[in-house]
Amino acid sequence: MSRIGVYRITKEGDLALLMGQRKKYHLIPLIQDAEFQTHRGIIYHNDLIGKQWGSKIESHKGNPFYLLQPGIQEIIHSTKRNTQIMYAKDIGYLLLKMNIINGASVIEAGTGSGSLTQVIAAMIGKEGHLYSYDSREEMQNLARKNLSRIGMDGRVTFIRKDIEEGFDQTNVHSLFLDLPNPYDYISQVNEALIPGGFFGCILPTTNQIVKLLTALRRYEFVNVEVTEIMLRHYQAEERKLRPVDRMVAHTGYLIFSRSIQS
Amino acid sequence: MSRIGVYRITKEGDLALLMGQRKKYHLIPLIQDAEFQTHRGIIYHNDLIGKQWGSKIESHKGNPFYLLQPGIQEIIHSTKRNTQIMYAKDIGYLLLKMNIINGASVIEAGTGSGSLTQVIAAMIGKEGHLYSYDSREEMQNLARKNLSRIGMDGRVTFIRKDIEEGFDQTNVHSLFLDLPNPYDYISQVNEALIPGGFFGCILPTTNQIVKLLTALRRYEFVNVEVTEIMLRHYQAEERKLRPVDRMVAHTGYLIFSRSIQS
Amino acid sequence: MSRIGVYRITKEGDLALLMGQRKKYHLIPLIQDAEFQTHRGIIYHNDLIGKQWGSKIESHKGNPFYLLQPGIQEIIHSTKRNTQIMYAKDIGYLLLKMNIINGASVIEAGTGSGSLTQVIAAMIGKEGHLYSYDSREEMQNLARKNLSRIGMDGRVTFIRKDIEEGFDQTNVHSLFLDLPNPYDYISQVNEALIPGGFFGCILPTTNQIVKLLTALRRYEFVNVEVTEIMLRHYQAEERKLRPVDRMVAHTGYLIFSRSIQS
Amino acid sequence: MSRIGVYRITKEGDLALLMGQRKKYHLIPLIQDAEFQTHRGIIYHNDLIGKQWGSKIESHKGNPFYLLQPGIQEIIHSTKRNTQIMYAKDIGYLLLKMNIINGASVIEAGTGSGSLTQVIAAMIGKEGHLYSYDSREEMQNLARKNLSRIGMDGRVTFIRKDIEEGFDQTNVHSLFLDLPNPYDYISQVNEALIPGGFFGCILPTTNQIVKLLTALRRYEFVNVEVTEIMLRHYQAEERKLRPVDRMVAHTGYLIFSRSIQS
Repeated sequence: MSRIGVYRITKEGDLALLMGQRKKYHLIPLIQDAEFQTHRGIIYHNDLIGKQWGSKIESHKGNPFYLLQPGIQEIIHSTKRNTQIMYAKDIGYLLLKMNIINGASVIEAGTGSGSLTQVIAAMIGKEGHLYSYDSREEMQNLARKNLSRIGMDGRVTFIRKDIEEGFDQTNVHSLFLDLPNPYDYISQVNEALIPGGFFGCILPTTNQIVKLLTALRRYEFVNVEVTEIMLRHYQAEERKLRPVDRMVAHTGYLIFSRSIQS
Repeated sequence: MSRIGVYRITKEGDLALLMGQRKKYHLIPLIQDAEFQTHRGIIYHNDLIGKQWGSKIESHKGNPFYLLQPGIQEIIHSTKRNTQIMYAKDIGYLLLKMNIINGASVIEAGTGSGSLTQVIAAMIGKEGHLYSYDSREEMQNLARKNLSRIGMDGRVTFIRKDIEEGFDQTNVHSLFLDLPNPYDYISQVNEALIPGGFFGCILPTTNQIVKLLTALRRYEFVNVEVTEIMLRHYQAEERKLRPVDRMVAHTGYLIFSRSIQS
Repeated sequence: MSRIGVYRITKEGDLALLMGQRKKYHLIPLIQDAEFQTHRGIIYHNDLIGKQWGSKIESHKGNPFYLLQPGIQEIIHSTKRNTQIMYAKDIGYLLLKMNIINGASVIEAGTGSGSLTQVIAAMIGKEGHLYSYDSREEMQNLARKNLSRIGMDGRVTFIRKDIEEGFDQTNVHSLFLDLPNPYDYISQVNEALIPGGFFGCILPTTNQIVKLLTALRRYEFVNVEVTEIMLRHYQAEERKLRPVDRMVAHTGYLIFSRSIQS
Repeated sequence: MSRIGVYRITKEGDLALLMGQRKKYHLIPLIQDAEFQTHRGIIYHNDLIGKQWGSKIESHKGNPFYLLQPGIQEIIHSTKRNTQIMYAKDIGYLLLKMNIINGASVIEAGTGSGSLTQVIAAMIGKEGHLYSYDSREEMQNLARKNLSRIGMDGRVTFIRKDIEEGFDQTNVHSLFLDLPNPYDYISQVNEALIPGGFFGCILPTTNQIVKLLTALRRYEFVNVEVTEIMLRHYQAEERKLRPVDRMVAHTGYLIFSRSIQS
């Protein structure tokens, strides 16, 4: 069962977001008798279990914390990772562009640390399914653990395989590649996608885009879109409203396209 | 039943995307014996029904079109509207920030033309529910029609009511306001949201943000984020890769916050 | 003599900026007995000559206009052109990056419509000099006319020549190329620049940048910078402060580098 | 005499830019018998004096450095400062918008560390003049020293005065305020500017812009522009062309306006 659904009272096993001052937060699973050390005092898990979400609690030093349910964005943001993870600004847009909605059948490769995996699983629901490919065992183990933490294991099949050899599925609705050389796999993508299916990928350099555009043209993909998304945070002060000083200038270019009947 | 699921063969009643040259597309429902006029020739619906998605078809003048299933982004983009609609870049991000995932219980106000309504319905699935408020009857009729077009009626309850009087639900997980004066309704928002729930809104001017920040502080909302998202399209030409000349500079600022246990 | 210097009273031959409502402006040379037709009424030049700058005047229909001296930005913005002209955001930055200051010795190619020509002339003063190359006669005639309009002819030498054959000057301080294929002329650039001189160019596509980087590396240029500048205008309304809806997404990438002693 | 003009051979007193690997640079005045310590070895000034600009030289450890003349952008970037300084992207644009060209008569307040001071001085030449106001003595001393370093002292008059009491000049062409509360001085600005003169300022928050717009309206300033400029650097690698990871998201909003005949 999904562990990030809607309910009022915390229970053991829930993921909890502890919010201290200045937006610093900790994401922890609630475990009977456990303790959580912060530099602003110890928090006893037993004080958190059975509480209402949204409560104000205190560390043993009397410092205040808010007990909140984490949302999917905070979950992926604090996902244990050994790779670069994708940003919410990019993931949110690709969900819409690639029609990754409740019930969708989706492939992603590579799995990486599983941050995109978690969001796709959360969106497609039990009616949908995600096939997640990676050739590196340690990646898939980490992603599996991250997914399990939010209780959505059943919606994802992890497949350890080099996609050079092709995908095991056909007729999938959407296929996303987070790899440095997606242009080498367009033939395999074409086999796996339902005709008219949604293809997407993310690439850091313009040189890679050029190669990908060539490969997409060769396989007659249509409706190619190349996009970048920039996100700017503002200082949320009513008397000093202004953008924060620094921002992420680049995560990657997003490329989308549709396969056709060959 | 959702009409934007995954299958190979078109049938009457489906929404179809007809893609001509240069990314120009038409979104039409397939109707036995109907004809569709384009400036590049007539297309007979009977030639489309029973075809494979992804097929190349021709107008009576012999001009080529691709027959594709529309994705949720193309559906909202071609939604009939009598108001400004939200953009995919903003909707995608708010889904993640507000945890609008499969199974979520959500309120939105106002309904508007129902573009956000459709995306939320597509994401929450049958396990979730959306309550959509608007005081204008013609708006809700339009949104209901737009939602019906994608077969997701059952997931949304339209409520015609001035939210000044409060929302009928309590304990909803996420609540989004697309109104010029959200700062006037924070008390009502607080009543409707589950403690710890996700609040969001979109505002075009900095003056409105200032007022909203004041209201959120008064009701002790926490974890306030003010963000803007800029999207830039690139010319998808492998030998002339560059941003397109002009872009949308501003749709609105996104503001997110969490309610707490009062 | 420069015609955009500082003084109080207009005289025949001056360039004048007529500002009507909503920031619409007209830039005209003042000519005895002439008339200027606007859709808000006729303006008689004799009513403008001998007036104080900054005066409010009226058309024959009684519509108000402000009589202002044009600044260099407004002058280039209303320059007669038969090519794409450079934007103030890009020109301003390159002045600083390429050290184009009072007294500098500069080459530009091509001349184009002469908008950059005018700004450089305005900055380097009488102590500096600009050599402006173009192989197209009609371009140079237009640029010469535009420059003459602001009274800065003496500071610029126009040279009609294909730069493939090299530049006639050596030891110039700064050299700017506004051409589609600057990578073909780096050897010539190297000959013309003083060792350590400032090189710059503007290019619309990423493919061109890649070629230029290769050429710069071959000729051992150092301190290469690739930059883009985005400018966003805001609606200047105190109660509705917000970015305007649309903006220029791309003018070109700016590339700067320094030559060395070979 | 300006110390950043065009010539081939270095001499004592010159400012020199020492460029090591990876764009790291040092800006030093050349002094007979001095030594310069870098973490890549000692450089003897006597090895630099009398050399050609653009030469490759070596530290005592054999590490290579390029000997370049600094441009105005590098000079202000390495200006000794005790305040936030303005960025080249903003300064370049304001030069054009405010018509700060060779021969212009300009006021700025406050002086700050004198980075804008130096650029204005470099542009207006000996025919122009800049009046720089600040009430803090230590600021003006620092700015004077920074200006003297580039040999442009004669073009600037430093005035230590609270501008609340008004400016000593009238009929200046352009007036720039770099202060937190420019809206308090619009009356004084109006007195100092020639009718039709160019006013500009930079402000970090939207709240300040709102106050300024109100003040400008009260004093009937026309042609108000509110703008922000974003600059994005790219990694200058021909095989990995992409924006760098992080960027400055905000320096300030630029506001420009014209005074009129009152």
